[in-house]
Amino acid sequence: MIVQKYKDMLKGKSVIRQLSEFATARGKEIGYENVFDYSLGNPSVPVPQKFTDVMIDLISTRDPMELHGYSQSLGIPSVREKTAESLNQRFGMNYTGNHIFMTTGAAGAIAHAVRCVTQPGDEVITFAPYFPEYNPYINLSGAVLKVVPANVEDFQVNFEAFEEMLTEKVMAVLINTPNNPSGIVYTTGTIQKLAGIMQAKEKEYGHDIFLISDEPYREIIFEGTDSPYISKFYKNTLSCYSYSKSLSLPGERIGYVAVNPECTDAEYITNMCGQISRGTGHNCPPSIIQLAVAQVLDLTSDLSVYEKNMNILYKELTSLGFECVKPGGTFYMFPKALEEDAIAFCEKAKKYDLILVPSDTFGVKGYFRLAYCIDTEKVERSLEAFRKFVNTEYR
Amino acid sequence: MIVQKYKDMLKGKSVIRQLSEFATARGKEIGYENVFDYSLGNPSVPVPQKFTDVMIDLISTRDPMELHGYSQSLGIPSVREKTAESLNQRFGMNYTGNHIFMTTGAAGAIAHAVRCVTQPGDEVITFAPYFPEYNPYINLSGAVLKVVPANVEDFQVNFEAFEEMLTEKVMAVLINTPNNPSGIVYTTGTIQKLAGIMQAKEKEYGHDIFLISDEPYREIIFEGTDSPYISKFYKNTLSCYSYSKSLSLPGERIGYVAVNPECTDAEYITNMCGQISRGTGHNCPPSIIQLAVAQVLDLTSDLSVYEKNMNILYKELTSLGFECVKPGGTFYMFPKALEEDAIAFCEKAKKYDLILVPSDTFGVKGYFRLAYCIDTEKVERSLEAFRKFVNTEYR
Repeated sequence: MIVQKYKDMLKGKSVIRQLSEFATARGKEIGYENVFDYSLGNPSVPVPQKFTDVMIDLISTRDPMELHGYSQSLGIPSVREKTAESLNQRFGMNYTGNHIFMTTGAAGAIAHAVRCVTQPGDEVITFAPYFPEYNPYINLSGAVLKVVPANVEDFQVNFEAFEEMLTEKVMAVLINTPNNPSGIVYTTGTIQKLAGIMQAKEKEYGHDIFLISDEPYREIIFEGTDSPYISKFYKNTLSCYSYSKSLSLPGERIGYVAVNPECTDAEYITNMCGQISRGTGHNCPPSIIQLAVAQVLDLTSDLSVYEKNMNILYKELTSLGFECVKPGGTFYMFPKALEEDAIAFCEKAKKYDLILVPSDTFGVKGYFRLAYCIDTEKVERSLEAFRKFVNTEYR
Repeated sequence: MIVQKYKDMLKGKSVIRQLSEFATARGKEIGYENVFDYSLGNPSVPVPQKFTDVMIDLISTRDPMELHGYSQSLGIPSVREKTAESLNQRFGMNYTGNHIFMTTGAAGAIAHAVRCVTQPGDEVITFAPYFPEYNPYINLSGAVLKVVPANVEDFQVNFEAFEEMLTEKVMAVLINTPNNPSGIVYTTGTIQKLAGIMQAKEKEYGHDIFLISDEPYREIIFEGTDSPYISKFYKNTLSCYSYSKSLSLPGERIGYVAVNPECTDAEYITNMCGQISRGTGHNCPPSIIQLAVAQVLDLTSDLSVYEKNMNILYKELTSLGFECVKPGGTFYMFPKALEEDAIAFCEKAKKYDLILVPSDTFGVKGYFRLAYCIDTEKVERSLEAFRKFVNTEYR
């Protein structure tokens, strides 16, 4: 019989999807260029031209048997080595190819990392506001996701609540910095304090507590932001990366787990990921995409548009009276709504063709998310809509 | 702490991998062209030129944002529709795009199918000889794989043992035809009888028993072989396909689950696969590969070399006295070893630079597998090695 658990999951409809469907429908009425759709976190700048050139070169010149052949289950060795070298150069780490496990994006990376270090029933802590897909990512692995309430002052870590929730049952802590949805980047101070608490608890409980660091926005950092490389601060770190945002390749499903060379059993973990993969049906990302990405490891798309958009929106929204912690990266911001009920607030915004996501879905009440990965020209046109919205509904 | 279950899996070393490593090492000594490596099931003919042309066209002409953008989690709608149409035309089915769930190859397809229809502890039956990866595929999902002993007479189904093992705890039956490792194709009679037994048991137990049909070799059928489309014979069929073998694209990870439109809850199953995917980190195969494959759905690589190789080997081996059920498809054959202990037999073969896989790993004793997806010229050169091997060791 079909499994009720998965059938039941079909009942709830994603808030973001509903908003996106509304935007599409409204776009058919008034032209999509007139809908200020801030709902979706899809990159809005193209992949670097070099990636395209490399792809054409690979397809035109390589032996197709070799090009499209099976990748080794942990990833193509030369790709893993180049990835390690690039991380070492940029962040002063000591990875070798053996510490890199190639995955189908960050989702695949987290799926493997969590299964490496948790048994069914173990707890994994994350921090609000958080990416709502962490619920299925963690809970469907058999572990249990626990959410530390937000520190709404600056969206850094709520340490008091964290220490209380970091019981003996917690085997992993999942962080996401730069953060979706807040756009906040954890400071060096935050990471040091987090690491210190986790190390103390590891000793107290006599077991490892792994840090699973979800880093798809690592390359989207705004001027003047302190953006520490997480794994440098805590040995038991599994860094989960995706090229979806930095190279604007979300559909091609490519990323990795990078295992800190000093973590417990570091020599086993990527091989364990390979075993886990046999059960989840992952079996490595596409060969051609691995080979192409390995040639553009140190490039990114032109990410400057996101900072430009952020500055325009931050200036306008704060001058309209919104409270907002200024983002340090990503293409999100997370201002406080102008009424307690963020769902009602975002519903009203729709009347002005502003598509905003209420914060409830991210584990916080009373805020909303803007995904400003859209054309700057459209951001600029949206300002008038914000003014109308606020002046009509809240003045 | 890292999970012992996956760490323990690292202890056993795959027999096939060990043989392949031996072949590589021996190749360094005497030249790889002189090692008759029949160990690996990798396609030996290139992808059709049209696929390459389509890839270049997509990369050169499409908007990269669209080309590399997120695929919907069930697959790109136009790709799902084209897949359905192609199957309907070829096999007289009534699929719509909604019955197709795009996956990262057959491994991904089985991972989703088994999770749709089994709870942890439920049993899944398969038939020896069988692909050894079924053990992790099924057992790591939480279900339990049970293996029906082989019918060594013709490698069709051992119905007596099947009926005995088809208890109330069995929620799915997993078949693989054309079969790895035997090369045998289940006849229409076999499928009808299998379906009849399963239908009777469904009634008796009052629950569905799903047929998970693993079909990566579906297009590699030899002359005169009866090769029924499985799903036509049993409503509750989930067909798991991969383009790895038919298009020689194993590294690009593309396949699908096709849900029989008349199966129980057919309208939910692909959507359930989408939910399962959130937990396993799959999140759809690469966009560009989906789009490219959709344009070559009814093509295959030039698969005729496999039949040619099979005929050469079958003639020589049977004339040397091997008992062998003649393959109806795939690029495998499964002769009886010349001594009871197939491992000892294959060990002796190595002295003649013949790399053969003992049958023990496929759940049968006393046979060996040849993967003849190698150049015909090499097959022909290997005949002398077979003659020497047999005449020296067994005459």
